[in-house]
Amino acid sequence: MPTTTLTAVPLRDVTLRDGFWCQRRETNRQATLAASYLQLGKSGTFEAYQWEWDPAAPPKPWRIWVGDLGKWIEAASYSLTAHPDAELEAQTDAAAAAIIKGQKVDGYLYSNPMAPGHYWDNLQEKHQLYDLGHTIEGAVARYEATGKRDLLDAVCRAADLAAATFGRGPGQIRGYDGHPEIELALVKLYRATGQERYLELARFFVDERGQPPGFFAQERADLERRGVALFGWYRNSDYSGCQAHRPVREQADAVGHAVRALYLYSGMADVALETADAGLLESCRRLWRSVTHRRMYVTGGIGSSAHGEAFTFDYDLPNETAYAETCASIALVLFAQRLLAIEAAAEYADVIERALYNGILSGVGIAGDRFFYGNRLTVYPQSVAGAHEHTADRRREWFGCACCPPNLARLLAGIGSYMASTAPGALYVHLYGGADIAATVDGAVVRLRQRTAYPWRDTVRFTLDLPAARTFTLALRLPGWCRTPRLAVNGVAVDLAPVCRQGYACLEREWQRGDRVTLRLPMPVERVEAHPRVRMDCGKVALQRGPIVYCLEQVDNGPELADLILPKRARLRAEFRPDLLGGSVVLRGKAWRRDPAGWEDTLYRAAGAPRQAVEITAVPYCLWANREPGEMLVWIRSEA
Amino acid sequence: MPTTTLTAVPLRDVTLRDGFWCQRRETNRQATLAASYLQLGKSGTFEAYQWEWDPAAPPKPWRIWVGDLGKWIEAASYSLTAHPDAELEAQTDAAAAAIIKGQKVDGYLYSNPMAPGHYWDNLQEKHQLYDLGHTIEGAVARYEATGKRDLLDAVCRAADLAAATFGRGPGQIRGYDGHPEIELALVKLYRATGQERYLELARFFVDERGQPPGFFAQERADLERRGVALFGWYRNSDYSGCQAHRPVREQADAVGHAVRALYLYSGMADVALETADAGLLESCRRLWRSVTHRRMYVTGGIGSSAHGEAFTFDYDLPNETAYAETCASIALVLFAQRLLAIEAAAEYADVIERALYNGILSGVGIAGDRFFYGNRLTVYPQSVAGAHEHTADRRREWFGCACCPPNLARLLAGIGSYMASTAPGALYVHLYGGADIAATVDGAVVRLRQRTAYPWRDTVRFTLDLPAARTFTLALRLPGWCRTPRLAVNGVAVDLAPVCRQGYACLEREWQRGDRVTLRLPMPVERVEAHPRVRMDCGKVALQRGPIVYCLEQVDNGPELADLILPKRARLRAEFRPDLLGGSVVLRGKAWRRDPAGWEDTLYRAAGAPRQAVEITAVPYCLWANREPGEMLVWIRSEA
Repeated sequence: MPTTTLTAVPLRDVTLRDGFWCQRRETNRQATLAASYLQLGKSGTFEAYQWEWDPAAPPKPWRIWVGDLGKWIEAASYSLTAHPDAELEAQTDAAAAAIIKGQKVDGYLYSNPMAPGHYWDNLQEKHQLYDLGHTIEGAVARYEATGKRDLLDAVCRAADLAAATFGRGPGQIRGYDGHPEIELALVKLYRATGQERYLELARFFVDERGQPPGFFAQERADLERRGVALFGWYRNSDYSGCQAHRPVREQADAVGHAVRALYLYSGMADVALETADAGLLESCRRLWRSVTHRRMYVTGGIGSSAHGEAFTFDYDLPNETAYAETCASIALVLFAQRLLAIEAAAEYADVIERALYNGILSGVGIAGDRFFYGNRLTVYPQSVAGAHEHTADRRREWFGCACCPPNLARLLAGIGSYMASTAPGALYVHLYGGADIAATVDGAVVRLRQRTAYPWRDTVRFTLDLPAARTFTLALRLPGWCRTPRLAVNGVAVDLAPVCRQGYACLEREWQRGDRVTLRLPMPVERVEAHPRVRMDCGKVALQRGPIVYCLEQVDNGPELADLILPKRARLRAEFRPDLLGGSVVLRGKAWRRDPAGWEDTLYRAAGAPRQAVEITAVPYCLWANREPGEMLVWIRSEA
Repeated sequence: MPTTTLTAVPLRDVTLRDGFWCQRRETNRQATLAASYLQLGKSGTFEAYQWEWDPAAPPKPWRIWVGDLGKWIEAASYSLTAHPDAELEAQTDAAAAAIIKGQKVDGYLYSNPMAPGHYWDNLQEKHQLYDLGHTIEGAVARYEATGKRDLLDAVCRAADLAAATFGRGPGQIRGYDGHPEIELALVKLYRATGQERYLELARFFVDERGQPPGFFAQERADLERRGVALFGWYRNSDYSGCQAHRPVREQADAVGHAVRALYLYSGMADVALETADAGLLESCRRLWRSVTHRRMYVTGGIGSSAHGEAFTFDYDLPNETAYAETCASIALVLFAQRLLAIEAAAEYADVIERALYNGILSGVGIAGDRFFYGNRLTVYPQSVAGAHEHTADRRREWFGCACCPPNLARLLAGIGSYMASTAPGALYVHLYGGADIAATVDGAVVRLRQRTAYPWRDTVRFTLDLPAARTFTLALRLPGWCRTPRLAVNGVAVDLAPVCRQGYACLEREWQRGDRVTLRLPMPVERVEAHPRVRMDCGKVALQRGPIVYCLEQVDNGPELADLILPKRARLRAEFRPDLLGGSVVLRGKAWRRDPAGWEDTLYRAAGAPRQAVEITAVPYCLWANREPGEMLVWIRSEA
C-alpha cells in the first residue's frame, strides 16, 4: 500500500470565482436544484418513507426513486456550503424531516412499505441498502454543511440496525444489496463519526459479494418457495449484472450494470484505503484498467449497452446505440477520485476531467432543467424516433427512474472538492478553473489563487498567499491531452522533465507570499483516434481541444453528417463565440462530402462519386442538443 | 397497362446443364430436400392437419410451421419435374396425403385445431389463409409436375370455402389474413384451373386490405370481448406491420414485416396483370421503387430490422444488425418476377440476380443442410454471442419457425423457371447459366443452348436450334452491373446502342438453325458505393465482380476486419480457386491496417498511427460461414 495518501481540500475551502465551473454550478444551484425539488415532490418522494405495509392494499409500484431524496439533500447541502440560502435550507430541512419521520423505532429506514419481519426481502432487487447509502451520503453532507445532526443520527441508527443484521455471526444475513452504494456510504459515515463498525460493515459487504454458493441464488430460491414474485432482472443469470458472479477480488473485467459496478469499485477503493488492503487495491486497479483502457467512450461515458445499462466486452463502443448513462460517468469520477486519493497519478484526474467536461455535462442542458439519462455519441433522428426516455435525442424534464438529475446536481454543487488535495508537504491541483483554494499543508494554511479562462484558453495563473515563507511541493497536473505544457515561477521557466512525477509537475521550493506560477497548456485542435479494435471508430477521428471533445450538429452542418470526411491536413480553427451556447469555443474548418445530386433512384453504383468542399463547425459535445433537434456525431470520418 | 406481357418458359422446358445453378440445384435436391423432409417430420408437421379441437386440452403451441409443408411439396414437385425420383415422389404423396386427410368435410384446411364455428378467428395472427396459400402453391406445382389432382382438388374445395366465406356479400367476412400469401396463390390456382372465382377472391383480399375502419382492430375488439388472448404482435399499432394500415393503393413506402410486404406486393402485381388494373400496377411500381431504390442491401437483402422482421426507414441499412431474412429476399424475387412479366425491363431481372447470387444463396451452406434465417452483412463474433437463432453467425440445421429452408428449397428446385420468357415474337433470356431452353415463340419451338461458366467467367455462348428459319427477337439481358457488354452473332459484332431496350439487347432477325450468339459481360472487380444517405456505408465500398458481392472473412484475413482500408488505386485480382468453397473466384489485393502494437493500455491517442500493408482475400458473400467461424464484413473502408 502507498504510505502517503491525498486528502481533498474540503468544499468549504474552495471558493469558485468566475469561469466555467462557477457558471455551471450557479445554473445548477438556480435551476437544477429547484427543478429537482419540484419534481421529487411531484413524484411523491417526500411521502415515500411514510407508507405503511398493508397486505390488503394492491401492490404498490416499485419506488424507483429510492435514494434520489438522499442525493438531493447531498446536493443542496453542498450548495449551502458555498452559498447560504434560507429557502434552500428550509427545503433541505423538510426533506430530511420527511425521511426521519418514516424511520421505524428499530432504526429501519427505507422508502418502500415492507412486510413486518421482511425488511430485507429481495435485496437483489429492492435496493434497501442502496437507498440507505444515498441517505447516509445526504446526511453526512448535511451535517458537514450545516452542523445539523438530525439526519446523521437517523442514518446512524439505520446503519446500526444494518450492522446488527448483516454479517457472518449467528442469525445474521450473509447478504448484500443488488445495487452497490452502501459500501462507499458506510466509509463516509465512518469518517464522519469515527465509528469503526461502519467501516467493518462496508468491508463485510465488499468481501461477501459474490462468494459461493451465491447469496442471490439462495435468496431467489427462498422467495420463490414463499411465492414472492421477483422482477426478474437477473433471471437465468450468473448475477454478473450486479457484480455478484464471483468474489470482488477475483473480478478482472468490468461487467454488468455500469453504475452498480463503479459504485462497488468506489466502495472497494475506500475500504482498501482505510484498511490498507493491498490485494483489494490491486483488484481496484485491475478493474480501473478494464474500464478506462478498454470500455470507455472518448467522452468518459461507460456502459455501452442499454440492455442492462451495462458493460459489454472489450472495445465494444457503439456510437448510435451508446447508452453511457450520466450516472455511470459520475460513478466513474467517484472511483477515479478514490484512486487519486491513494495514488497521486494524473491518469485518474485525466479521467475525471474527461468525464466531467464531456459525458457528464452533456447530461444537463445549459439552462439546467433538462436532462439526458443516456448519452449517445451519434444521433440520427429517424433511428431514435420513439426511443425510450433513457435513450432519447432530446433532454427530458425528468424520468420515471430519475437517478441522473440529482446525481448531476450533487456533483456540480460539490465540484469544488475535486480541484485540489493535500498530502504531507504537498498541495496538488487536479482541475483548473477560477478558484481560491485555502489548503492546509503540514498544519499551515496556504492560499492559492487560481485564475484562468480554462477550458477555453490555455493559461492558468496561480498566486500564492501564505503567512510566512514555507517549503512544500506545489504539484500541478499536466493533463494527458497536452503535449507541450509550459510552466514558469515568477516569470522564470521551469524545466518540466526533472520535476514531472506521474503526470504532475512537482515544484518543491520555499514558497513566498505573492509567488506567481503560470501554467500554459497549449490546446491545439487534436484529431484523436481510437484503438484499432474499436471497430465503430476505425477510420474516424474525434476532435478534441484541451479537455473538450467536440461534435457536429445538424443545425450547424446540415444533415447526413456521416458522409462528411475530414481532410488529413485541413486546418481546424478554434473560435471563441461569446453568443453561442453560453459562450464557447467552436472549431471550424473545411471538409468534404459527396454531392447528393445525381443519386435519384440509385442506391448503389461504382465508387468515385465526386465530392465537394464544405465548411464545418464543431461544438463542444457537452453543449449539444441545446438548439434545434437533428443529427449529431462525435466520430468524424477522416481521410486515410 | 402494357399490352404485351412475358410468359416464363416453364420449368419442364429448361434443362439445366453443368455450371453454377445446376450444381446448387443438385445440392438442393440431394441435401436440402432430404434434410427438410426429415426436419418437417421430426417437428410433427405431418400430423399438424389432423389435430382435432379439444377445448379441454391444454392450449397447443402455435403451429409456427404453417405453410412449410406446402412449400416442401412445391419444392419436391419442381425437383421431380427435372429429376424423376420414386422415393421423393412417394414422400410427396405422403405429404399431400397428410394434408388432405386433415381436411374437414366443408373443405376447411388448416394446420391448427380451431374451435368449431371459429375457423377464421384471429386472422391477424393465425395465418389460416397464409397456410392455405402455400398449400395451394404446393398443390399447383404437384399437379403440374405429376398430373396428380388429389391435393389440387383439396385446395380447390378449401378455396371455394374461402370464396364463400370472405367478401362483401351478406354474412361474409370483410377480412383478410395478417400474413399475405393467399393472394398470389389464388392467382396461381386461377391460372391452373381457369376458375375466375379464385382471381376474384384474390382481388377482394388485395382491395379490402387496410380499408377503414380496419378489419384487424375490429377483430381484435371482438376477440377481446370474447376473452380470447392474442399473441399481441401488433398491439398498439396501426397494423402497418402487416401492411393493413391503409388501402394498398395508397401505400407509398414499403413498411412492416418484409416477407409479408413482398408477398402482398407479388399478389398485387398478379392481380394487376390479370385484371389489367393500371392503378394497382402503379402502386406496385411505387412500392418497388421504395424497396429497391431506398431499402435494399447490396446483397438483395431486405427488412433491415430484427424487431418485427421489418423495414424501417429510407436508407437505414445497418450491417452488423442486418436482419435481411432469407425468405424476404426470396419474396423480393417473386415480386420482381411478376413485374418482369408485365414489363420487360432489366432492372427487375437485375434485382432477381442480385438477390439470388447473394442474399438468398447465403441462406444455405454449400453442403445444403445448414441455413441462415437472417443474413447479416457484418459479423463480429463477440457481439453475436448468444444471439437468437434467427440472427446467429453460424447456419443452423433448422429453426423453431422454419419458413426459410423450404422456401430456399422451392426456389432452387425451380430456378430454371427464372431463366427465360417468351412474348409475341420474342424470346427473352434473363439469367445466364448452362441450360437448354425449349421455348415456344409464336407457336414454334425454338431451342436455345446456353453454355457458360457464369458467374465466374464473362462469356455466354448461345446456339439456336429451330426447325426452320424464323424471324423473331432474341432479347438478352445486359446486366446493370456490366459497363461494357459485347455481343456477336455468328462472329460478327453487334452495335448494342441501337438494339438496347430497357436493358435488353433485342436482336430481331431471321434466325437460322445453328446461329451462334456470343455475349461477353466483362466483369472487372468493381468497388461499389452506397447512396450518401446510407450512413453505415459512408466511406466504404463493397467489392463486386459480375453479379457476385464479396466479403472478407477472418479465416482469410485475420481479425479486426473493420480496421482494414482499401487503397484507392490498389489492383484487386480475381482468381479462380477450384479447391475453395466448391470452386469459386476469390479477389486478392493489398490493403492497409494499423499496427496493433503500441496500443497497450491506450484507448485513445492523437491520430496518425502508422499503418502496414497486408494482403487481403475476399470470397463471395453467398459462400461465407462455410469454414471456421470468425468475423465477416461486406462493406470495406476505402481510402478517401
